[in-house]
Amino acid sequence: MTLEPFRIDDGVLRVLDQTLLPEREEWIEINGADEMAEAIRRLAVRGAPAIGIAAGLALALEAERLAKNGTPGPSLIQSLRAAGARLKATRPTAVNLARAVNHVIAVASVPNGDEVVPSADGAAARARLEAQALWDEDIAASRAMAAHGAALLPDARRVLTHCNTGGLATGGGGTALAVILELARRRPELEVWITETRPLLQGARLTAWELSRAGIEPRLVTDGAASFAIARNGIDAVLVGADRVARNGDVANKVGTYALALAAREAGIPFMVVAPTSTLDLRIEEGGAIPIEERDSSEVTSFRGVPTAAPGVRAHNPAFDITPARLVTHLVTEQGVGIPEAASPGG
Amino acid sequence: MTLEPFRIDDGVLRVLDQTLLPEREEWIEINGADEMAEAIRRLAVRGAPAIGIAAGLALALEAERLAKNGTPGPSLIQSLRAAGARLKATRPTAVNLARAVNHVIAVASVPNGDEVVPSADGAAARARLEAQALWDEDIAASRAMAAHGAALLPDARRVLTHCNTGGLATGGGGTALAVILELARRRPELEVWITETRPLLQGARLTAWELSRAGIEPRLVTDGAASFAIARNGIDAVLVGADRVARNGDVANKVGTYALALAAREAGIPFMVVAPTSTLDLRIEEGGAIPIEERDSSEVTSFRGVPTAAPGVRAHNPAFDITPARLVTHLVTEQGVGIPEAASPGG
Repeated sequence: MTLEPFRIDDGVLRVLDQTLLPEREEWIEINGADEMAEAIRRLAVRGAPAIGIAAGLALALEAERLAKNGTPGPSLIQSLRAAGARLKATRPTAVNLARAVNHVIAVASVPNGDEVVPSADGAAARARLEAQALWDEDIAASRAMAAHGAALLPDARRVLTHCNTGGLATGGGGTALAVILELARRRPELEVWITETRPLLQGARLTAWELSRAGIEPRLVTDGAASFAIARNGIDAVLVGADRVARNGDVANKVGTYALALAAREAGIPFMVVAPTSTLDLRIEEGGAIPIEERDSSEVTSFRGVPTAAPGVRAHNPAFDITPARLVTHLVTEQGVGIPEAASPGG
Repeated sequence: MTLEPFRIDDGVLRVLDQTLLPEREEWIEINGADEMAEAIRRLAVRGAPAIGIAAGLALALEAERLAKNGTPGPSLIQSLRAAGARLKATRPTAVNLARAVNHVIAVASVPNGDEVVPSADGAAARARLEAQALWDEDIAASRAMAAHGAALLPDARRVLTHCNTGGLATGGGGTALAVILELARRRPELEVWITETRPLLQGARLTAWELSRAGIEPRLVTDGAASFAIARNGIDAVLVGADRVARNGDVANKVGTYALALAAREAGIPFMVVAPTSTLDLRIEEGGAIPIEERDSSEVTSFRGVPTAAPGVRAHNPAFDITPARLVTHLVTEQGVGIPEAASPGG
């Protein structure tokens, strides 16, 4: 039962509109890079690994469209660069997005052996191969992370996770939620506690939906109640994903993560960050230098048209927070546990 | 500009329905103890000091009604005891409720000097006087706490508070919010950050509304974002109320408080609990023994009829959490700072 946030049928790229889940499963057709940029901006597709792959697929599509229109290779590359810049501008925190865009364009730009300048068809073909490779690698990374992470928690009976880090947030496999699903496969009695994850409720809506599909009945708590659940309800481990990991191990992840890390340390339980190496950004020294996306106040002051705050009140709405490395007990990547020295710099 | 959660006009007791605020200001007429119990249960009136006073006023009303109907004194007292038990059963965590009920009934039950058994009229008159005294004492306590608390934060420029602890939560004065309003009176440039306080959004709805009425524009954050705001945004102090304080200083308060206390300690800033001595329960040794009210799952899974979680998901919904005494830097009561030894036992 694979759960992928995008799919290609007969050459048509579609993304599952996550803003409508779980009430409605609606697939939106994406016809170019700017339509994908809009889908990423409004969170129809979200999750650090997923938006990287989505951007790569959109660039491949863009390259094919331009090649079909007879655009010469060098102009095509120039257009891809402009489209890539627009894609990268949509969401500043997750490094996977910038990395995927840069990789696809770099690969598309290098002429084949027999070309002087890149041909349009060659560039489009290389963009497609690279985008597909990023997707395949992400699925393989999820499998490896699930195994590495589950091995670290041989006795966990009750785990807690934040936001959504499942198939919907990645190329289909998941990060922290992939570890949890692997734990549940090994121990069906596993109890999975999830935070609702305000303001957009990715936990209550998306993670709950993914777990239900996998036959697991989650225990939902508000973000404010999660720390007390960790202190009082015998949670054995907290598992989260990451949007960017700095060189010193500081982690940018969905806002609310930092509070859970403090509670986990206080309770003396593991706080595990599960993220592919595509999330590491070795150019950034420490968490304070990671740009934090500030989203619109209205995400907090209303929900699906219903006001959730007094009229006129303005919210400060950072999408992410920074958890210092000292609070992270395990960083699980597809290469194993800890920050691998061999990880390539972000970008 | 007093803001009281209940009022008596021409002998008619009314409560402001806080579930409808701030969209609608609707006053509900209360004709007896059971109508008040229902209003407390569904949070039309809420806040530890407020529900204590509300219960006292309802018992006085009940006593007057029974006396008018010709109920003999001893039967009246018996009826009051039964009504008091129903009132106390509505919400188990705040000790003020049980304390107020017990005080009003105890005072009503003691015959005047010239009575052998309490007369109905005498009991009703004493219940009324005691209920009014509890209300008056609470207003005086708010004034004293505001002064004591503000004196402890001579330099605070930016404070954060949780849930609603203003006039609506008390007899009209407030606890933590009274301190904040006093700070703002002294330093108009004070910045007030408030948490939305899921699931029922008392911060976003009620505290925002109270602050707006006082001419203060609050900065709203989700509960998950509050800890990061404390780490990153230069918050100088966190101020909260309490629903019950154990003998060792552990504090039961609105769920989400514990996470803020951890973040405050990590940031090295004061974490101030502001509560009248009516909130102290010296019969309870430590926080683990305080009963935590578990409210309905639906408060988390929907908001005003709009689903906020995947269908069928069940939430664990404790209304309160426990903050260990070691995380509380100041306990401010009307008697001063710290747990006064002279405080009378709860109940």
